Amino acid sequence: MKRAQALPRADYPRFYMLDTRWADNDIYGHINNVVYYAYIDSVINRFLIEEGGLDIASGSIVGFVVSSGCDYLSPAAYPDVLEAGLRVEHLGNSSVRYGVGIFRRGEERPCAQGFSVHVFVARPDNRPVPLPAQLRRALQTLLVD
Amino acid sequence: MKRAQALPRADYPRFYMLDTRWADNDIYGHINNVVYYAYIDSVINRFLIEEGGLDIASGSIVGFVVSSGCDYLSPAAYPDVLEAGLRVEHLGNSSVRYGVGIFRRGEERPCAQGFSVHVFVARPDNRPVPLPAQLRRALQTLLVD
Amino acid sequence: MKRAQALPRADYPRFYMLDTRWADNDIYGHINNVVYYAYIDSVINRFLIEEGGLDIASGSIVGFVVSSGCDYLSPAAYPDVLEAGLRVEHLGNSSVRYGVGIFRRGEERPCAQGFSVHVFVARPDNRPVPLPAQLRRALQTLLVD
Amino acid sequence: MKRAQALPRADYPRFYMLDTRWADNDIYGHINNVVYYAYIDSVINRFLIEEGGLDIASGSIVGFVVSSGCDYLSPAAYPDVLEAGLRVEHLGNSSVRYGVGIFRRGEERPCAQGFSVHVFVARPDNRPVPLPAQLRRALQTLLVD
Repeated sequence: MKRAQALPRADYPRFYMLDTRWADNDIYGHINNVVYYAYIDSVINRFLIEEGGLDIASGSIVGFVVSSGCDYLSPAAYPDVLEAGLRVEHLGNSSVRYGVGIFRRGEERPCAQGFSVHVFVARPDNRPVPLPAQLRRALQTLLVD
Repeated sequence: MKRAQALPRADYPRFYMLDTRWADNDIYGHINNVVYYAYIDSVINRFLIEEGGLDIASGSIVGFVVSSGCDYLSPAAYPDVLEAGLRVEHLGNSSVRYGVGIFRRGEERPCAQGFSVHVFVARPDNRPVPLPAQLRRALQTLLVD
Repeated sequence: MKRAQALPRADYPRFYMLDTRWADNDIYGHINNVVYYAYIDSVINRFLIEEGGLDIASGSIVGFVVSSGCDYLSPAAYPDVLEAGLRVEHLGNSSVRYGVGIFRRGEERPCAQGFSVHVFVARPDNRPVPLPAQLRRALQTLLVD
Repeated sequence: MKRAQALPRADYPRFYMLDTRWADNDIYGHINNVVYYAYIDSVINRFLIEEGGLDIASGSIVGFVVSSGCDYLSPAAYPDVLEAGLRVEHLGNSSVRYGVGIFRRGEERPCAQGFSVHVFVARPDNRPVPLPAQLRRALQTLLVD
Protein backbone atom coordinates (compact mmCIF):
# COMPACT_ATOMS: atom_id res chain seq x y z
CA MET A 1 0.00 0.00 0.00
CA LYS A 2 1.37 3.35 -0.94
CA ARG A 3 2.45 5.81 1.69
CA ALA A 4 2.14 9.55 1.48
CA GLN A 5 5.16 11.58 0.51
CA ALA A 6 6.45 13.24 3.65
CA LEU A 7 6.47 17.02 3.30
CA PRO A 8 9.30 18.92 4.98
CA ARG A 9 8.80 21.83 7.38
CA ALA A 10 9.40 24.34 4.61
CA ASP A 11 6.11 23.35 3.01
CA TYR A 12 4.14 24.74 5.96
CA PRO A 13 3.73 28.51 6.34
CA ARG A 14 2.61 28.37 9.99
CA PHE A 15 3.66 26.40 13.06
CA TYR A 16 2.08 25.77 16.45
CA MET A 17 3.49 24.07 19.53
CA LEU A 18 1.61 21.08 20.85
CA ASP A 19 1.76 19.68 24.36
CA THR A 20 1.37 15.97 24.62
CA ARG A 21 -0.64 14.40 27.44
CA TRP A 22 -0.27 11.26 29.50
CA ALA A 23 -3.27 9.60 27.87
CA ASP A 24 -2.00 10.34 24.33
CA ASN A 25 0.18 7.26 24.73
CA ASP A 26 -1.66 4.03 24.25
CA ILE A 27 -0.84 0.58 25.60
CA TYR A 28 1.96 0.25 23.03
CA GLY A 29 3.71 3.29 24.49
CA HIS A 30 3.31 5.69 21.57
CA ILE A 31 0.92 8.47 20.75
CA ASN A 32 -2.23 6.77 19.53
CA ASN A 33 -3.23 7.32 15.91
CA VAL A 34 -6.52 8.93 16.97
CA VAL A 35 -4.79 11.65 18.94
CA TYR A 36 -3.18 13.14 15.83
CA TYR A 37 -6.66 14.10 14.67
CA ALA A 38 -7.21 15.92 17.95
CA TYR A 39 -4.00 17.85 17.27
CA ILE A 40 -5.13 18.61 13.71
CA ASP A 41 -8.55 19.89 14.87
CA SER A 42 -6.95 21.99 17.57
CA VAL A 43 -4.43 23.82 15.41
CA ILE A 44 -6.92 24.46 12.61
CA ASN A 45 -9.51 25.93 14.93
CA ARG A 46 -6.92 27.91 16.85
CA PHE A 47 -5.99 29.60 13.59
CA LEU A 48 -9.63 30.16 12.60
CA ILE A 49 -10.47 31.70 15.99
CA GLU A 50 -7.35 33.79 16.49
CA GLU A 51 -6.89 35.02 12.94
CA GLY A 52 -10.07 34.30 11.02
CA GLY A 53 -12.58 35.72 13.47
CA LEU A 54 -14.42 32.44 13.97
CA ASP A 55 -16.72 32.64 16.99
CA ILE A 56 -17.21 29.06 18.14
CA ALA A 57 -19.36 29.97 21.14
CA SER A 58 -22.07 32.03 19.51
CA GLY A 59 -21.34 32.57 15.82
CA SER A 60 -23.96 31.52 13.25
CA ILE A 61 -21.34 30.20 10.84
CA VAL A 62 -19.64 26.96 11.75
CA GLY A 63 -17.17 24.65 10.03
CA PHE A 64 -18.20 21.01 9.76
CA VAL A 65 -15.51 18.45 9.01
CA VAL A 66 -16.60 16.33 6.04
CA SER A 67 -13.42 14.34 5.45
CA SER A 68 -10.09 13.70 7.11
CA GLY A 69 -7.12 11.41 6.84
CA CYS A 70 -3.64 10.84 8.20
CA ASP A 71 -0.50 8.87 7.46
CA TYR A 72 1.70 7.83 10.36
CA LEU A 73 5.37 7.91 9.51
CA SER A 74 7.25 7.48 12.77
CA PRO A 75 6.27 7.21 16.41
CA ALA A 76 6.21 9.96 19.03
CA ALA A 77 5.38 9.64 22.71
CA TYR A 78 4.33 11.71 25.69
CA PRO A 79 6.06 13.74 27.17
CA ASP A 80 7.42 14.89 23.80
CA VAL A 81 6.65 18.45 22.80
CA LEU A 82 5.53 18.49 19.18
CA GLU A 83 5.13 21.11 16.49
CA ALA A 84 2.31 21.27 13.98
CA GLY A 85 2.76 22.82 10.56
CA LEU A 86 -0.44 24.19 9.02
CA ARG A 87 -1.23 24.98 5.39
CA VAL A 88 -4.28 25.44 3.20
CA GLU A 89 -4.27 23.11 0.22
CA HIS A 90 -7.56 24.12 -1.36
CA LEU A 91 -9.79 27.12 -0.80
CA GLY A 92 -13.26 26.75 -2.31
CA ASN A 93 -16.36 28.87 -2.04
CA SER A 94 -17.62 27.21 1.14
CA SER A 95 -14.94 24.63 1.80
CA VAL A 96 -11.31 24.49 2.84
CA ARG A 97 -8.81 21.66 2.76
CA TYR A 98 -6.06 21.96 5.35
CA GLY A 99 -2.80 20.05 5.48
CA VAL A 100 -1.12 19.48 8.84
CA GLY A 101 2.29 17.97 9.51
CA ILE A 102 3.23 16.90 13.04
CA PHE A 103 6.94 17.09 13.81
CA ARG A 104 9.10 16.30 16.76
CA ARG A 105 11.39 19.11 17.81
CA GLY A 106 14.49 19.30 15.72
CA GLU A 107 13.25 16.78 13.17
CA GLU A 108 12.69 17.60 9.54
CA ARG A 109 10.62 14.54 8.73
CA PRO A 110 7.09 14.47 10.18
CA CYS A 111 5.78 11.80 12.58
CA ALA A 112 2.39 12.16 10.99
CA GLN A 113 0.89 14.02 8.07
CA GLY A 114 -2.81 14.59 7.77
CA PHE A 115 -5.57 16.62 6.21
CA SER A 116 -9.02 17.80 7.10
CA VAL A 117 -11.78 19.36 4.99
CA HIS A 118 -14.20 21.91 6.41
CA VAL A 119 -17.48 22.96 4.85
CA PHE A 120 -18.77 26.18 6.35
CA VAL A 121 -22.50 26.32 7.00
CA ALA A 122 -24.95 28.77 8.53
CA ARG A 123 -26.93 27.68 11.54
CA PRO A 124 -29.60 26.57 12.20
CA ASP A 125 -30.24 25.27 8.66
CA ASN A 126 -26.68 24.04 8.20
CA ARG A 127 -26.65 25.09 4.54
CA PRO A 128 -23.23 25.77 3.00
CA VAL A 129 -22.38 29.46 2.79
CA PRO A 130 -19.55 31.43 1.21
CA LEU A 131 -16.61 31.82 3.56
CA PRO A 132 -16.84 35.11 5.50
CA ALA A 133 -14.40 37.72 4.17
CA GLN A 134 -12.15 37.84 7.26
CA LEU A 135 -11.91 34.06 7.36
CA ARG A 136 -11.09 33.87 3.65
CA ARG A 137 -8.39 36.52 3.94
CA ALA A 138 -6.78 34.69 6.82
CA LEU A 139 -6.89 31.35 5.02
CA GLN A 140 -5.36 32.83 1.88
CA THR A 141 -2.20 33.61 3.84
CA LEU A 142 -1.72 29.85 4.32
CA LEU A 143 -2.66 28.78 0.80
CA VAL A 144 -0.09 26.71 -1.08
CA ASP A 145 -0.28 25.72 -4.73
CA MET B 1 -14.39 17.88 -3.52
CA LYS B 2 -15.58 14.38 -4.06
CA ARG B 3 -17.25 12.46 -1.26
CA ALA B 4 -17.01 8.76 -0.63
CA GLN B 5 -19.76 6.49 -1.85
CA ALA B 6 -21.77 5.46 1.19
CA LEU B 7 -21.79 1.69 1.62
CA PRO B 8 -24.99 0.10 2.97
CA ARG B 9 -25.10 -2.24 5.94
CA ALA B 10 -25.13 -5.29 3.68
CA ASP B 11 -21.53 -4.55 2.70
CA TYR B 12 -20.31 -5.30 6.22
CA PRO B 13 -20.08 -8.89 7.45
CA ARG B 14 -19.82 -8.02 11.16
CA PHE B 15 -21.46 -5.46 13.44
CA TYR B 16 -20.68 -4.14 16.90
CA MET B 17 -22.72 -1.88 19.17
CA LEU B 18 -21.11 1.36 20.26
CA ASP B 19 -22.02 3.43 23.30
CA THR B 20 -21.59 7.13 22.88
CA ARG B 21 -20.23 9.26 25.70
CA TRP B 22 -21.00 12.75 26.94
CA ALA B 23 -17.67 14.11 25.73
CA ASP B 24 -18.11 12.65 22.24
CA ASN B 25 -20.26 15.71 21.50
CA ASP B 26 -18.28 18.81 20.81
CA ILE B 27 -19.31 22.44 21.22
CA TYR B 28 -21.46 22.18 18.08
CA GLY B 29 -23.56 19.44 19.68
CA HIS B 30 -22.56 16.53 17.46
CA ILE B 31 -20.12 13.71 17.79
CA ASN B 32 -16.74 15.18 16.99
CA ASN B 33 -14.96 13.95 13.88
CA VAL B 34 -12.03 12.68 15.95
CA VAL B 35 -14.22 10.36 17.99
CA TYR B 36 -15.12 8.23 14.95
CA TYR B 37 -11.49 7.14 14.82
CA ALA B 38 -11.75 6.02 18.44
CA TYR B 39 -14.76 3.93 17.45
CA ILE B 40 -12.87 2.49 14.48
CA ASP B 41 -9.85 1.55 16.60
CA SER B 42 -12.05 0.00 19.24
CA VAL B 43 -14.07 -2.29 16.98
CA ILE B 44 -11.03 -3.42 15.00
CA ASN B 45 -9.06 -4.32 18.10
CA ARG B 46 -12.07 -5.96 19.75
CA PHE B 47 -12.26 -8.29 16.76
CA LEU B 48 -8.52 -8.95 16.76
CA ILE B 49 -8.49 -9.75 20.48
CA GLU B 50 -11.69 -11.75 20.67
CA GLU B 51 -11.38 -13.69 17.44
CA GLY B 52 -7.84 -13.31 16.18
CA GLY B 53 -5.98 -14.14 19.36
CA LEU B 54 -4.21 -10.79 19.59
CA ASP B 55 -2.66 -10.31 23.04
CA ILE B 56 -2.36 -6.56 23.52
CA ALA B 57 -0.97 -6.80 27.05
CA SER B 58 2.00 -9.08 26.52
CA GLY B 59 2.11 -10.38 22.94
CA SER B 60 5.26 -9.82 20.90
CA ILE B 61 3.30 -9.05 17.73
CA VAL B 62 1.50 -5.73 17.56
CA GLY B 63 -0.45 -3.89 14.89
CA PHE B 64 0.69 -0.34 14.14
CA VAL B 65 -1.70 1.96 12.30
CA VAL B 66 0.08 3.45 9.30
CA SER B 67 -2.83 5.20 7.60
CA SER B 68 -6.43 6.09 8.32
CA GLY B 69 -9.22 8.21 6.93
CA CYS B 70 -12.90 8.97 7.33
CA ASP B 71 -15.76 10.67 5.51
CA TYR B 72 -18.52 12.22 7.57
CA LEU B 73 -21.91 11.88 5.95
CA SER B 74 -24.47 12.90 8.54
CA PRO B 75 -24.32 13.93 12.20
CA ALA B 76 -24.93 11.76 15.25
CA ALA B 77 -24.94 12.84 18.88
CA TYR B 78 -24.62 11.44 22.38
CA PRO B 79 -26.69 9.71 23.81
CA ASP B 80 -27.29 7.87 20.51
CA VAL B 81 -26.39 4.21 20.45
CA LEU B 82 -24.48 3.47 17.26
CA GLU B 83 -23.56 0.36 15.32
CA ALA B 84 -20.24 -0.22 13.59
CA GLY B 85 -19.95 -2.45 10.54
CA LEU B 86 -16.52 -4.02 10.07
CA ARG B 87 -14.94 -5.50 6.95
CA VAL B 88 -11.49 -6.32 5.65
CA GLU B 89 -10.78 -4.64 2.33
CA HIS B 90 -7.24 -5.88 1.77
CA LEU B 91 -5.26 -8.64 3.40
CA GLY B 92 -1.54 -8.51 2.66
CA ASN B 93 1.37 -10.45 4.04
CA SER B 94 1.93 -8.15 7.04
CA SER B 95 -0.78 -5.58 6.54
CA VAL B 96 -4.55 -5.30 6.69
CA ARG B 97 -6.89 -2.61 5.46
CA TYR B 98 -10.16 -2.44 7.40
CA GLY B 99 -13.33 -0.62 6.39
CA VAL B 100 -15.70 0.58 9.10
CA GLY B 101 -19.15 2.11 8.68
CA ILE B 102 -20.82 3.83 11.61
CA PHE B 103 -24.61 3.72 11.54
CA ARG B 104 -27.37 5.03 13.72
CA ARG B 105 -29.91 2.43 14.76
CA GLY B 106 -32.47 1.79 12.10
CA GLU B 107 -30.62 3.76 9.45
CA GLU B 108 -29.27 2.23 6.28
CA ARG B 109 -26.99 5.10 5.37
CA PRO B 110 -23.87 5.56 7.53
CA CYS B 111 -23.09 8.68 9.57
CA ALA B 112 -19.44 8.09 8.87
CA GLN B 113 -17.36 5.71 6.82
CA GLY B 114 -13.70 5.18 7.48
CA PHE B 115 -10.71 2.95 7.02
CA SER B 116 -7.57 2.05 8.89
CA VAL B 117 -4.45 0.17 7.82
CA HIS B 118 -2.47 -1.99 10.21
CA VAL B 119 1.04 -3.26 9.69
CA PHE B 120 1.89 -6.08 12.07
CA VAL B 121 5.36 -6.00 13.54
CA ALA B 122 7.35 -8.03 16.04
CA ARG B 123 8.66 -6.32 19.14
CA PRO B 124 11.12 -5.04 20.13
CA ASP B 125 12.57 -4.46 16.66
CA ASN B 126 9.24 -3.43 15.16
CA ARG B 127 10.01 -5.20 11.89
CA PRO B 128 7.00 -6.25 9.78
CA VAL B 129 6.14 -9.93 10.13
CA PRO B 130 3.69 -12.24 8.39
CA LEU B 131 0.28 -12.23 10.03
CA PRO B 132 0.00 -15.05 12.60
CA ALA B 133 -2.14 -17.92 11.31
CA GLN B 134 -5.02 -17.47 13.77
CA LEU B 135 -5.20 -13.76 13.04
CA ARG B 136 -5.16 -14.35 9.29
CA ARG B 137 -7.92 -16.94 9.48
CA ALA B 138 -10.10 -14.60 11.51
CA LEU B 139 -9.50 -11.69 9.14
CA GLN B 140 -10.32 -13.80 6.10
CA THR B 141 -13.85 -14.25 7.41
CA LEU B 142 -14.34 -10.48 7.01
CA LEU B 143 -12.60 -10.11 3.66
CA VAL B 144 -14.64 -8.53 0.88
CA ASP B 145 -13.62 -8.30 -2.75
CA MET C 1 -4.38 7.27 53.43
CA LYS C 2 -7.88 6.03 53.94
CA ARG C 3 -9.75 4.38 51.10
CA ALA C 4 -13.44 4.59 50.43
CA GLN C 5 -15.69 1.81 51.60
CA ALA C 6 -16.66 -0.17 48.52
CA LEU C 7 -20.44 -0.23 48.06
CA PRO C 8 -21.97 -3.41 46.65
CA ARG C 9 -24.28 -3.49 43.64
CA ALA C 10 -27.36 -3.58 45.87
CA ASP C 11 -26.65 0.01 46.91
CA TYR C 12 -27.35 1.28 43.38
CA PRO C 13 -30.94 1.48 42.13
CA ARG C 14 -30.02 1.80 38.45
CA PHE C 15 -27.44 0.20 36.16
CA TYR C 16 -26.08 1.04 32.72
CA MET C 17 -23.79 -0.95 30.44
CA LEU C 18 -20.54 0.70 29.42
CA ASP C 19 -18.44 -0.15 26.39
CA THR C 20 -14.75 0.28 26.86
CA ARG C 21 -12.57 1.68 24.08
CA TRP C 22 -9.07 0.97 22.88
CA ALA C 23 -7.75 4.28 24.14
CA ASP C 24 -9.25 3.79 27.61
CA ASN C 25 -6.20 1.66 28.36
CA ASP C 26 -3.11 3.65 29.11
CA ILE C 27 0.53 2.65 28.74
CA TYR C 28 0.25 0.46 31.85
CA GLY C 29 -2.44 -1.65 30.19
CA HIS C 30 -5.41 -0.68 32.39
CA ILE C 31 -8.24 1.74 32.05
CA ASN C 32 -6.80 5.12 32.90
CA ASN C 33 -8.07 6.86 36.02
CA VAL C 34 -9.35 9.81 33.97
CA VAL C 35 -11.62 7.62 31.88
CA TYR C 36 -13.77 6.66 34.87
CA TYR C 37 -14.89 10.28 35.03
CA ALA C 38 -15.97 10.06 31.39
CA TYR C 39 -18.05 7.02 32.33
CA ILE C 40 -19.53 8.87 35.31
CA ASP C 41 -20.47 11.91 33.21
CA SER C 42 -21.98 9.72 30.53
CA VAL C 43 -24.28 7.67 32.74
CA ILE C 44 -25.45 10.67 34.75
CA ASN C 45 -26.34 12.67 31.66
CA ARG C 46 -27.92 9.67 29.96
CA PHE C 47 -30.28 9.42 32.91
CA LEU C 48 -30.97 13.17 32.96
CA ILE C 49 -31.74 13.22 29.22
CA GLU C 50 -33.72 10.02 28.97
CA GLU C 51 -35.69 10.28 32.19
CA GLY C 52 -35.35 13.80 33.48
CA GLY C 53 -36.17 15.71 30.32
CA LEU C 54 -32.82 17.49 30.14
CA ASP C 55 -32.32 19.09 26.72
CA ILE C 56 -28.57 19.42 26.30
CA ALA C 57 -28.77 20.86 22.78
CA SER C 58 -31.09 23.80 23.32
CA GLY C 59 -32.43 23.85 26.89
CA SER C 60 -31.92 26.97 28.97
CA ILE C 61 -31.17 24.97 32.13
CA VAL C 62 -27.84 23.20 32.32
CA GLY C 63 -26.00 21.24 34.98
CA PHE C 64 -22.48 22.40 35.78
CA VAL C 65 -20.18 20.00 37.61
CA VAL C 66 -18.74 21.75 40.66
CA SER C 67 -16.98 18.85 42.33
CA SER C 68 -16.06 15.25 41.58
CA GLY C 69 -13.94 12.46 42.97
CA CYS C 70 -13.15 8.81 42.54
CA ASP C 71 -11.46 5.93 44.35
CA TYR C 72 -9.85 3.20 42.27
CA LEU C 73 -10.18 -0.21 43.86
CA SER C 74 -9.11 -2.74 41.23
CA PRO C 75 -8.04 -2.53 37.59
CA ALA C 76 -10.17 -3.10 34.51
CA ALA C 77 -9.06 -3.06 30.89
CA TYR C 78 -10.41 -2.72 27.37
CA PRO C 79 -12.10 -4.79 25.92
CA ASP C 80 -13.99 -5.43 29.18
CA VAL C 81 -17.65 -4.56 29.20
CA LEU C 82 -18.45 -2.69 32.40
CA GLU C 83 -21.58 -1.82 34.32
CA ALA C 84 -22.22 1.47 36.09
CA GLY C 85 -24.47 1.71 39.11
CA LEU C 86 -26.07 5.13 39.60
CA ARG C 87 -27.61 6.64 42.72
CA VAL C 88 -28.47 10.08 44.06
CA GLU C 89 -26.82 10.77 47.41
CA HIS C 90 -28.10 14.27 47.98
CA LEU C 91 -30.86 16.26 46.35
CA GLY C 92 -30.75 19.96 47.13
CA ASN C 93 -32.72 22.88 45.77
CA SER C 94 -30.38 23.48 42.81
CA SER C 95 -27.79 20.80 43.29
CA VAL C 96 -27.47 17.04 43.12
CA ARG C 97 -24.77 14.70 44.33
CA TYR C 98 -24.56 11.46 42.37
CA GLY C 99 -22.74 8.28 43.36
CA VAL C 100 -21.49 5.97 40.64
CA GLY C 101 -19.96 2.52 41.04
CA ILE C 102 -18.17 0.89 38.10
CA PHE C 103 -18.27 -2.89 38.12
CA ARG C 104 -16.91 -5.63 35.93
CA ARG C 105 -19.48 -8.15 34.82
CA GLY C 106 -20.14 -10.76 37.44
CA GLU C 107 -18.21 -8.92 40.15
CA GLU C 108 -19.78 -7.63 43.31
CA ARG C 109 -16.93 -5.33 44.28
CA PRO C 110 -16.48 -2.21 42.16
CA CYS C 111 -13.35 -1.38 40.17
CA ALA C 112 -13.97 2.28 40.90
CA GLN C 113 -16.37 4.30 42.96
CA GLY C 114 -16.93 7.95 42.33
CA PHE C 115 -19.18 10.95 42.79
CA SER C 116 -20.09 14.10 40.96
CA VAL C 117 -22.00 17.19 42.04
CA HIS C 118 -24.15 19.18 39.64
CA VAL C 119 -25.45 22.68 40.20
CA PHE C 120 -28.25 23.53 37.81
CA VAL C 121 -28.17 27.03 36.37
CA ALA C 122 -30.20 29.01 33.86
CA ARG C 123 -28.46 30.37 30.81
CA PRO C 124 -27.19 32.85 29.84
CA ASP C 125 -26.67 34.26 33.35
CA ASN C 126 -25.63 30.92 34.82
CA ARG C 127 -27.45 31.63 38.07
CA PRO C 128 -28.49 28.60 40.15
CA VAL C 129 -32.15 27.73 39.74
CA PRO C 130 -34.47 25.24 41.43
CA LEU C 131 -34.41 21.84 39.74
CA PRO C 132 -37.19 21.59 37.14
CA ALA C 133 -40.06 19.40 38.36
CA GLN C 134 -39.56 16.55 35.88
CA LEU C 135 -35.86 16.39 36.65
CA ARG C 136 -36.49 16.37 40.40
CA ARG C 137 -39.07 13.60 40.14
CA ALA C 138 -36.69 11.47 38.11
CA LEU C 139 -33.81 12.06 40.51
CA GLN C 140 -35.94 11.19 43.53
CA THR C 141 -36.35 7.67 42.17
CA LEU C 142 -32.59 7.20 42.61
CA LEU C 143 -32.27 8.91 45.99
CA VAL C 144 -30.70 6.84 48.76
CA ASP C 145 -30.53 7.82 52.42
CA MET D 1 -22.26 21.55 49.91
CA LYS D 2 -18.94 22.96 50.92
CA ARG D 3 -16.47 24.07 48.31
CA ALA D 4 -12.74 23.78 48.56
CA GLN D 5 -10.73 26.79 49.60
CA ALA D 6 -9.05 28.14 46.50
CA LEU D 7 -5.28 28.18 46.89
CA PRO D 8 -3.37 31.05 45.26
CA ARG D 9 -0.44 30.59 42.90
CA ALA D 10 2.05 31.18 45.69
CA ASP D 11 1.05 27.86 47.24
CA TYR D 12 2.49 25.93 44.28
CA PRO D 13 6.27 25.55 43.95
CA ARG D 14 6.19 24.47 40.28
CA PHE D 15 4.24 25.54 37.21
CA TYR D 16 3.66 24.00 33.78
CA MET D 17 1.99 25.45 30.72
CA LEU D 18 -0.98 23.55 29.33
CA ASP D 19 -2.34 23.74 25.81
CA THR D 20 -6.05 23.32 25.50
CA ARG D 21 -7.57 21.32 22.64
CA TRP D 22 -10.69 21.70 20.56
CA ALA D 23 -12.33 18.68 22.13
CA ASP D 24 -11.65 19.89 25.68
CA ASN D 25 -14.74 22.07 25.28
CA ASP D 26 -17.97 20.20 25.70
CA ILE D 27 -21.40 21.02 24.33
CA TYR D 28 -21.78 23.79 26.91
CA GLY D 29 -18.74 25.57 25.51
CA HIS D 30 -16.37 25.15 28.45
CA ILE D 31 -13.58 22.76 29.28
CA ASN D 32 -15.27 19.60 30.44
CA ASN D 33 -14.76 18.56 34.05
CA VAL D 34 -13.12 15.29 32.98
CA VAL D 35 -10.39 17.06 31.05
CA TYR D 36 -8.94 18.63 34.20
CA TYR D 37 -7.97 15.16 35.34
CA ALA D 38 -6.10 14.67 32.07
CA TYR D 39 -4.21 17.87 32.81
CA ILE D 40 -3.49 16.70 36.36
CA ASP D 41 -2.17 13.32 35.17
CA SER D 42 -0.05 14.96 32.53
CA VAL D 43 1.74 17.47 34.73
CA ILE D 44 2.36 14.96 37.52
CA ASN D 45 3.89 12.40 35.17
CA ARG D 46 5.89 15.03 33.31
CA PHE D 47 7.51 15.93 36.60
CA LEU D 48 8.09 12.28 37.55
CA ILE D 49 9.68 11.50 34.18
CA GLU D 50 11.74 14.64 33.73
CA GLU D 51 12.93 15.07 37.31
CA GLY D 52 12.21 11.86 39.18
CA GLY D 53 13.69 9.39 36.73
CA LEU D 54 10.41 7.52 36.16
CA ASP D 55 10.67 5.28 33.11
CA ILE D 56 7.11 4.77 31.92
CA ALA D 57 8.07 2.65 28.90
CA SER D 58 10.12 -0.06 30.53
CA GLY D 59 10.63 0.62 34.24
CA SER D 60 9.57 -2.03 36.74
CA ILE D 61 8.18 0.55 39.18
CA VAL D 62 4.94 2.26 38.25
CA GLY D 63 2.60 4.68 39.98
CA PHE D 64 -1.05 3.62 40.18
CA VAL D 65 -3.63 6.28 40.94
CA VAL D 66 -5.77 5.13 43.87
CA SER D 67 -7.79 8.28 44.48
CA SER D 68 -8.43 11.63 42.83
CA GLY D 69 -10.75 14.60 43.13
CA CYS D 70 -11.34 18.08 41.80
CA ASP D 71 -13.32 21.20 42.55
CA TYR D 72 -14.35 23.43 39.66
CA LEU D 73 -14.31 27.09 40.56
CA SER D 74 -14.70 29.01 37.32
CA PRO D 75 -14.93 28.06 33.66
CA ALA D 76 -12.16 28.07 31.08
CA ALA D 77 -12.42 27.27 27.38
CA TYR D 78 -10.32 26.26 24.42
CA PRO D 79 -8.28 28.01 22.98
CA ASP D 80 -7.18 29.36 26.38
CA VAL D 81 -3.63 28.59 27.41
CA LEU D 82 -3.62 27.44 31.01
CA GLU D 83 -1.02 27.03 33.72
CA ALA D 84 -0.87 24.17 36.21
CA GLY D 85 0.64 24.58 39.66
CA LEU D 86 2.00 21.38 41.17
CA ARG D 87 2.76 20.55 44.79
CA VAL D 88 3.22 17.47 46.95
CA GLU D 89 0.85 17.44 49.91
CA HIS D 90 1.87 14.14 51.46
CA LEU D 91 4.88 11.93 50.93
CA GLY D 92 4.52 8.45 52.38
CA ASN D 93 6.66 5.37 52.11
CA SER D 94 5.05 4.13 48.88
CA SER D 95 2.47 6.80 48.23
CA VAL D 96 2.31 10.46 47.22
CA ARG D 97 -0.54 12.92 47.30
CA TYR D 98 -0.23 15.70 44.73
CA GLY D 99 -2.16 18.97 44.63
CA VAL D 100 -2.71 20.66 41.29
CA GLY D 101 -4.22 24.09 40.63
CA ILE D 102 -5.25 25.05 37.11
CA PHE D 103 -5.08 28.76 36.39
CA ARG D 104 -5.85 30.96 33.45
CA ARG D 105 -3.05 33.27 32.47
CA GLY D 106 -2.92 36.36 34.59
CA GLU D 107 -5.45 35.07 37.09
CA GLU D 108 -4.68 34.47 40.73
CA ARG D 109 -7.72 32.35 41.48
CA PRO D 110 -7.75 28.83 39.98
CA CYS D 111 -10.38 27.57 37.55
CA ALA D 112 -10.02 24.15 39.11
CA GLN D 113 -8.18 22.63 42.02
CA GLY D 114 -7.59 18.93 42.28
CA PHE D 115 -5.56 16.17 43.83
CA SER D 116 -4.34 12.74 42.91
CA VAL D 117 -2.80 9.96 45.01
CA HIS D 118 -0.20 7.58 43.60
CA VAL D 119 0.84 4.29 45.13
CA PHE D 120 4.09 3.04 43.64
CA VAL D 121 4.28 -0.68 42.97
CA ALA D 122 6.76 -3.09 41.43
CA ARG D 123 5.73 -5.06 38.38
CA PRO D 124 4.64 -7.71 37.69
CA ASP D 125 3.30 -8.40 41.19
CA ASN D 126 2.04 -4.86 41.68
CA ARG D 127 3.05 -4.86 45.35
CA PRO D 128 3.67 -1.45 46.93
CA VAL D 129 7.36 -0.59 47.21
CA PRO D 130 9.28 2.24 48.84
CA LEU D 131 9.70 5.22 46.54
CA PRO D 132 13.00 5.04 44.63
CA ALA D 133 15.57 7.47 46.02
CA GLN D 134 15.72 9.76 42.96
CA LEU D 135 11.94 9.97 42.82
CA ARG D 136 11.72 10.76 46.54
CA ARG D 137 14.34 13.47 46.31
CA ALA D 138 12.53 15.10 43.41
CA LEU D 139 9.17 14.94 45.18
CA GLN D 140 10.59 16.44 48.35
CA THR D 141 11.38 19.63 46.45
CA LEU D 142 7.63 20.10 45.93
CA LEU D 143 6.52 19.10 49.42
CA VAL D 144 4.41 21.64 51.30
CA ASP D 145 3.37 21.41 54.92
